[in-house]
Amino acid sequence: MTVGGGKPGIRRIRLTVAYDGTRYAGWQIQPNGLAVQEVLDRCLSELLGTEIRTLGASRTDAGVHALGNVAVFDTCARMPADKFSYALNTRLPEDIRIQCSEEVSPDFHPRFRETVKTYEYRILNRRFPDPTRRLNSFHWYGSLDLEAMRRGAALLVGTHDFKGFATANPQTRSTVRTIFKTELWKEDDMIRFRITGNGFLYNMVRIITGTLLEIGKGAMETDQIPEILSSGDRSMAGPTARAHGLTLVEIRYPGEEKQKMDVIR
Amino acid sequence: MTVGGGKPGIRRIRLTVAYDGTRYAGWQIQPNGLAVQEVLDRCLSELLGTEIRTLGASRTDAGVHALGNVAVFDTCARMPADKFSYALNTRLPEDIRIQCSEEVSPDFHPRFRETVKTYEYRILNRRFPDPTRRLNSFHWYGSLDLEAMRRGAALLVGTHDFKGFATANPQTRSTVRTIFKTELWKEDDMIRFRITGNGFLYNMVRIITGTLLEIGKGAMETDQIPEILSSGDRSMAGPTARAHGLTLVEIRYPGEEKQKMDVIR
Repeated sequence: MTVGGGKPGIRRIRLTVAYDGTRYAGWQIQPNGLAVQEVLDRCLSELLGTEIRTLGASRTDAGVHALGNVAVFDTCARMPADKFSYALNTRLPEDIRIQCSEEVSPDFHPRFRETVKTYEYRILNRRFPDPTRRLNSFHWYGSLDLEAMRRGAALLVGTHDFKGFATANPQTRSTVRTIFKTELWKEDDMIRFRITGNGFLYNMVRIITGTLLEIGKGAMETDQIPEILSSGDRSMAGPTARAHGLTLVEIRYPGEEKQKMDVIR
Repeated sequence: MTVGGGKPGIRRIRLTVAYDGTRYAGWQIQPNGLAVQEVLDRCLSELLGTEIRTLGASRTDAGVHALGNVAVFDTCARMPADKFSYALNTRLPEDIRIQCSEEVSPDFHPRFRETVKTYEYRILNRRFPDPTRRLNSFHWYGSLDLEAMRRGAALLVGTHDFKGFATANPQTRSTVRTIFKTELWKEDDMIRFRITGNGFLYNMVRIITGTLLEIGKGAMETDQIPEILSSGDRSMAGPTARAHGLTLVEIRYPGEEKQKMDVIR
């Protein structure tokens, strides 16, 4: 990783990265398939003529999309910071697009503990799938009790141990996270579930969504949410909802009212 | 074509067909690439164990999408009409989905002169493209005068000779069409332009959209719309907007308040 220590002449550049996760094995470079980071690092290295390795804020899973993931890298190139987005976008494949590039302080680290992350899970709720929206929403044909789903989601707000809503990961030190807000609404035939928190455990948003889907179908009760939280028992929660319905919407850092990007409104 | 003459025991089935046109050379079977109709006919023929050829209402261009194209075929199979949608959807690729199947009168012809067709052109108006919406919207980074575009679109309503807004096609007898309604609005960063009429000439919606885009940019004036209509001169209109922003939304037949489909709302 070339994210180093603030040597003279070295600048740290922060990228806001959007991608369609359909054909990627997730954000982070790994042996089992092409990663978004791998493609981005290759384009950056070609652009700058030297090996660059970015550090990303969120290691989204295979198939998960992003409108505003964040990555940083260090460079001594003298290109104006805002030009990196244009220069990279001409090299990147169509399913990855930089939304903003800017210089940040050399001690800016994308995995701050104080970030505020928002994810959205989209459920296309209609009889038959819509092919034009199949890549970024999960199709469910049956009726769903949105009011119950909303009540269930609201029970997650606050600081809790979310062990019961996560796939076990031995690298995770603490399973306590804070959820600031949940929203669930329907626009036409699309149900959109947004959850904002200071961090999310492995598969946490997908397991929460899978549980809310069970509640919506009447197969689980909202009362079970506090029980899953208090027991920390993953087997009590619903199944992990499929990856392609999930999008990382934005990541905000301390002092930012909204994510620095020109475009996502 | 097996759409025949109403022999005893032969039923006519009407399908409402949705597709992501990205990887297709249009609706109609043709030598230069895979057509939606080709895939549909193959699945139908396999399902029924006999060669079936559908007749489609709208020959959408390469790359154009549909939520509600209409196709009919004749069969003596005794499967309940509404089961064709389920049976076909298990065989079709993910980018084609039947939305409704039903029996119609043996003299129902999908290319009625009295149909009411609605198309939508989507313009994603933001600084950088959004990879998750790249397949069904055209990206434009600059500012657009929506009010001028709306005024220009309104000048198309009525019965006119649309020769100036069409790519010449020697097979077309009359270039007169009636536009019933145009709508243009912005939702967040997406501009949606809807146009409803009794029929559209070859490339007509895309040339109209290309002209409205020029008006939105300030490169053309709304006054030029009536001039293009009266002159019939294609070279006076704007460029043909790219196919991937266009979707055939619905086709209504005489006596139908809205398209027969369970799902598109």
